[in-house]
Amino acid sequence: MTYCVALRLDRGLVFMSDTRTNAGLDNISTYRKMFSWEDPGESFVTIMTAGNLATTQSVVSLIEERMKAPGDRNPSILGLPSMFQVARLIGTTLKEVIAEHKRTGMEASNTFNASIIVGGQTKGSEPRLFLVYPEGNFVEAGPDTPFFQIGEMKYGRPILVRAFDPAMSFEAAAKLLFVSFDSTIKANLSVGLPLDLQIYETGSLKKGVERRVEADDPDFQTISQGWGDALKMAFDSLPDVTL
Amino acid sequence: MTYCVALRLDRGLVFMSDTRTNAGLDNISTYRKMFSWEDPGESFVTIMTAGNLATTQSVVSLIEERMKAPGDRNPSILGLPSMFQVARLIGTTLKEVIAEHKRTGMEASNTFNASIIVGGQTKGSEPRLFLVYPEGNFVEAGPDTPFFQIGEMKYGRPILVRAFDPAMSFEAAAKLLFVSFDSTIKANLSVGLPLDLQIYETGSLKKGVERRVEADDPDFQTISQGWGDALKMAFDSLPDVTL
Repeated sequence: MTYCVALRLDRGLVFMSDTRTNAGLDNISTYRKMFSWEDPGESFVTIMTAGNLATTQSVVSLIEERMKAPGDRNPSILGLPSMFQVARLIGTTLKEVIAEHKRTGMEASNTFNASIIVGGQTKGSEPRLFLVYPEGNFVEAGPDTPFFQIGEMKYGRPILVRAFDPAMSFEAAAKLLFVSFDSTIKANLSVGLPLDLQIYETGSLKKGVERRVEADDPDFQTISQGWGDALKMAFDSLPDVTL
Repeated sequence: MTYCVALRLDRGLVFMSDTRTNAGLDNISTYRKMFSWEDPGESFVTIMTAGNLATTQSVVSLIEERMKAPGDRNPSILGLPSMFQVARLIGTTLKEVIAEHKRTGMEASNTFNASIIVGGQTKGSEPRLFLVYPEGNFVEAGPDTPFFQIGEMKYGRPILVRAFDPAMSFEAAAKLLFVSFDSTIKANLSVGLPLDLQIYETGSLKKGVERRVEADDPDFQTISQGWGDALKMAFDSLPDVTL
């Protein structure tokens, strides 16, 4: 499995992903699932992937390759004029990779599927955040749905729903994601440390804070250990049920 | 879907189940999923069911029928000498119902499956709590795994893991279950009010407090509304991440 979350805040975008991949419980590995590209002053794009690792690696490689061959007829995602077109290009690439694997590989339902969160900003527009489906189509985050989760989303969702606030600081948003990831990691072995954190500040048109959160990260440990006590205090503060 | 939880406390057992069943999003109904039987001074049994409704209703009807025909060769679950034998009888009944539906009905994988939580006490033994699988076999709750969940368990699990304490009062346990169910109901449309609550006090060998929790239940409303604020306070009490 996988767990990735992207938040759309007033002051920018915040991305977090885990790094565990598995082919069965007895075959786990660590792979990066978050990738960012920047053309400072022009555009910034981050994607996070969930699903079949061969598929998502193919998609990322194709994106990278297009950027390294300037004379190529295929457009690079950094050269596109809008985030909508970036999402469309990633959707098309994803759909084509899945279709090719299906055509040449064995027929297994959903086996090659993957989903991708795409966020960023191009000069002259607002930051935008999309969720791209294996079919290549996508939806955009807005005021009513200000965050996207992919992968094992259920354990970490209640705290996001309750504590998310579009006006929150990047520091509070990172704390929120730590709590959400901690709950998920404690419950599902297929989501694991280290985590990748990427912050994008509206209008900066370049990479913001980037951080790999290892198991011994002091901030993560503080949140992970403190959350249990904080939650118990919150629980105790409510009145008992009268029976 | 369904959501049922049973807790094994030092002072007894606490059961809670929702009542929503659905065959598609556009076809929902309310059915009781919790059933209790008592032979005061001798034994007490509660079961909660998740899965195919036709299967679980069949199982409950078979159990009821056996109890109403005293001369029947089939043993009644209230006449059995131990909770282990009660769990075995329910497991066998469940397995037989599934097998019969599979044999006579259409072949659809897992369609007729169901799981059952069984808890109670017989005279001369401690209270025991079991989780019965569609295959008819079962596992027992113990000090390391002091509660069982069936159905849509992920949203409501983190608070159970963090706040459960075997020494807690029945009143606090009911509060804990309200929080866990509230998180689940807010996230999954296939889990819905009203809820059924059943408490069994160790050694009483009879029904304890029984309650149907409707949407306008003042205790449930207090918890549901208070939990959001309490959670935000808990979240704010943790230090922000340093970026």
